[in-house]
Amino acid sequence: MATDRLATQLGFVLEVEKLKQVFRQTLLVGDRRRENDAEHSWHLSLMAILLVEYAAADVDLLKVLKMLLIHDVVEIDAGDTFAYDVVGNKDKAQREQQAADRLFGLLPQDQAPAYRALWDEFERRQSAAARYAAALDRLQPLLLNFYTDGAAWQRHGIKKAQVIAHNEHIGEGAPALWEFARELIDAAVAKGILAE
Amino acid sequence: MATDRLATQLGFVLEVEKLKQVFRQTLLVGDRRRENDAEHSWHLSLMAILLVEYAAADVDLLKVLKMLLIHDVVEIDAGDTFAYDVVGNKDKAQREQQAADRLFGLLPQDQAPAYRALWDEFERRQSAAARYAAALDRLQPLLLNFYTDGAAWQRHGIKKAQVIAHNEHIGEGAPALWEFARELIDAAVAKGILAE
Repeated sequence: MATDRLATQLGFVLEVEKLKQVFRQTLLVGDRRRENDAEHSWHLSLMAILLVEYAAADVDLLKVLKMLLIHDVVEIDAGDTFAYDVVGNKDKAQREQQAADRLFGLLPQDQAPAYRALWDEFERRQSAAARYAAALDRLQPLLLNFYTDGAAWQRHGIKKAQVIAHNEHIGEGAPALWEFARELIDAAVAKGILAE
Repeated sequence: MATDRLATQLGFVLEVEKLKQVFRQTLLVGDRRRENDAEHSWHLSLMAILLVEYAAADVDLLKVLKMLLIHDVVEIDAGDTFAYDVVGNKDKAQREQQAADRLFGLLPQDQAPAYRALWDEFERRQSAAARYAAALDRLQPLLLNFYTDGAAWQRHGIKKAQVIAHNEHIGEGAPALWEFARELIDAAVAKGILAE
């Protein structure tokens, strides 16, 4: 049924459905369950269109959205590595490269390279679009952490300096959002939900 | 902290986070739990970029994505109305209009009308972009229903003719995807997971 091409494309669509079962460290504000990567990707994408006025440079918003919609699919194979997990982050790049090879390799030959290139561009923050997308990918968990009383920070004993070091590249993609994030981090310390 | 404008925008971002807790009738292929609207919106958006070659006409893909990313936020207030719920669908439009008024009204005054207009355009299927977006919004649950052995159809005693009537506008937005969907519906009947 269907053409081979469409069947191949829908095979990818069904494979990436697994992203709905990759759970992150961040809790949702509403019911405090762990967020999954599919929900996270939707939230970032919506933020990208709403907040584009804060991008450091004129960005191709369609490209930003494409990057955000696919940026986490590698975690289907590689799993979610917590931002502050030093051991896990050592081989993260290699695990994710292999995942990208397999997953984007499921697409038709004329589509696979473009999606792989988008993922590489995002990972390397090689363009204004990638830097803006990456800024949102950091800002969103920061927001959720703040509004869940620092749950993920506290569970893992994360300190202010680590949060700043991990997130400061928000400033490259969206300076005003980094300014806001710095205020949020200070407010988290003042509230006692993030260790100094 | 932050400018009033950014605070207003982030207020909307935090409000629509509730979409992660609006659950649909469709089950996920992986663990057979109910899908939520945020995951669904992500999946549709990814399908939109992958499958754009099947759109009935040249579409503005950025507009398609904007529509898909926001199309379900009204369900935060109005709830998810099952496609085949005759009673629930009677006042669905009114409930969703009120939800759209409230939710898009949370945005800054210069942004609210554009998002409300996108939602209206999607709902009314007034453009090729809206018809393509709406086609995906029907195709995705059909795929998940098929690959979960017709779970949602069977729970509600849905028959083939209802599935065809409800989904046939896929053909207006993406004729080749409707052709595929028709084959999938026939295959579901042949497999005994959808009543004739």
